[in-house]
Amino acid sequence: MVIVGERINASRKNIRPAIERRDAAFIQAEAKKQAAAGADYVDVNCGVFLDREPEYLAWLVQTVQEVVDTPLCLDSPNPAAIAAGLKHYRNGIPLINSVSNEGTRAQDLIPLIQDYNANVVALCMGLTGAMPKDAADRVTEARALIETLTTAGVPLGNIYVDPVVCPIGNDVRNGLAVLEAIREIMATFPGVHTICGLTNVSHGMPLRKLLNQNFLVLCMAAGLDGVILDPLDQRLMSNVLAAEALLGRDDFCLNYIRAHRAERLVL
Amino acid sequence: MVIVGERINASRKNIRPAIERRDAAFIQAEAKKQAAAGADYVDVNCGVFLDREPEYLAWLVQTVQEVVDTPLCLDSPNPAAIAAGLKHYRNGIPLINSVSNEGTRAQDLIPLIQDYNANVVALCMGLTGAMPKDAADRVTEARALIETLTTAGVPLGNIYVDPVVCPIGNDVRNGLAVLEAIREIMATFPGVHTICGLTNVSHGMPLRKLLNQNFLVLCMAAGLDGVILDPLDQRLMSNVLAAEALLGRDDFCLNYIRAHRAERLVL
Repeated sequence: MVIVGERINASRKNIRPAIERRDAAFIQAEAKKQAAAGADYVDVNCGVFLDREPEYLAWLVQTVQEVVDTPLCLDSPNPAAIAAGLKHYRNGIPLINSVSNEGTRAQDLIPLIQDYNANVVALCMGLTGAMPKDAADRVTEARALIETLTTAGVPLGNIYVDPVVCPIGNDVRNGLAVLEAIREIMATFPGVHTICGLTNVSHGMPLRKLLNQNFLVLCMAAGLDGVILDPLDQRLMSNVLAAEALLGRDDFCLNYIRAHRAERLVL
Repeated sequence: MVIVGERINASRKNIRPAIERRDAAFIQAEAKKQAAAGADYVDVNCGVFLDREPEYLAWLVQTVQEVVDTPLCLDSPNPAAIAAGLKHYRNGIPLINSVSNEGTRAQDLIPLIQDYNANVVALCMGLTGAMPKDAADRVTEARALIETLTTAGVPLGNIYVDPVVCPIGNDVRNGLAVLEAIREIMATFPGVHTICGLTNVSHGMPLRKLLNQNFLVLCMAAGLDGVILDPLDQRLMSNVLAAEALLGRDDFCLNYIRAHRAERLVL
């Protein structure tokens, strides 16, 4: 399971002011904690700054790299910000988050993906003006993105399809639509990856953590092999390890048992 | 989701001595708590008493029925014990747990199933001397049982196939084998039910509750629509409600929201 640590996001309280005051120590502590907790990528997102996003993203990339060797996930809808961040990038293969079928977003980012041999999140939206409604919409968006990216030479194994998680509070079919999309995308394009965030699914609902924790496990059952989450949430990380053992993806349950010995598993 | 409350089982400490001293108040309190917590069936199992099992099971049936109207799950490998219990049965449609392909077990129980128009757990074992190894073994056992039962006039909708859960600590493929079997059985025999206990999966592993809780959710994703568990375990029951909402089986998430208002959901 590929874990993308989501904490360094300027839409979170504490993070935005830390970036504004260029508080490197605060950001670096967040990066180190996530790497130590098992993040495979440390996400950096400062989209809330709009015009100043490229400048701030470049600063985040440099600041985080001073303290961890973990690859980064450069997270922005703005190709100029991604480009500004990549100029300073040196932590191995980056994950670019994200391309979609909207406008020229994929075409703008493809040269950067090629230059850095980057992994890329392919967000299942953009063919129409609307959010994807059902599993079929998501598979259609995924197919178009995979065709665009592979035609440009991006290997299937570098693509992480994000099915776009929508709240079950808006429509109770939204959870199942994502699960079915994951299953179909993984079956139709062997070698591709799938990834998503969890928190949107529970928007507007009570006891959101209960839903988020269970949605993670349901997505893994459907084949999800990447996830964007807070790796300091020990219960979420414990669910990842438990689900991998139960799904036969942890030989001899060694990772599960080692995590227990290291006192990383919680109820 | 059909919930079978598993607490009144003489293999559990406290229950065995309560049965031995004919402590009706203790057993009745266990029955009432489980019914109040949402059990659709209250399981009664006193298999540990061997020769005296029929007598004790009859006493359990009568004792529980004095305080709850919830249907009972008569749980024994011994058809004579089931028969002794059914003689006193009056709480609606019972669930008989279980028939299998072993020896004459199915043929011995079929007359009772017919007489009481009972629901029945069909345990996926018995064609060979060994436990089922993989999903295919389980589907083969299920097919034979479903044929035996439906030929005898038992409606498919009265059959709860139990795929037989084995520990992942023995073989890490054991979890996935059950999940694949559930998926295939539900797809191959539309209208049939599936049911299982959870605790075997984690036998010999650390932090068993974490595995049991997640296995429940994985089984539900595969289509499981019945489960044998402790309904006083609020986290397990919360996972049932969360998973039903996330799988689109709870219209407008009403059951989830009501359970939250009733303060029945926990993390």
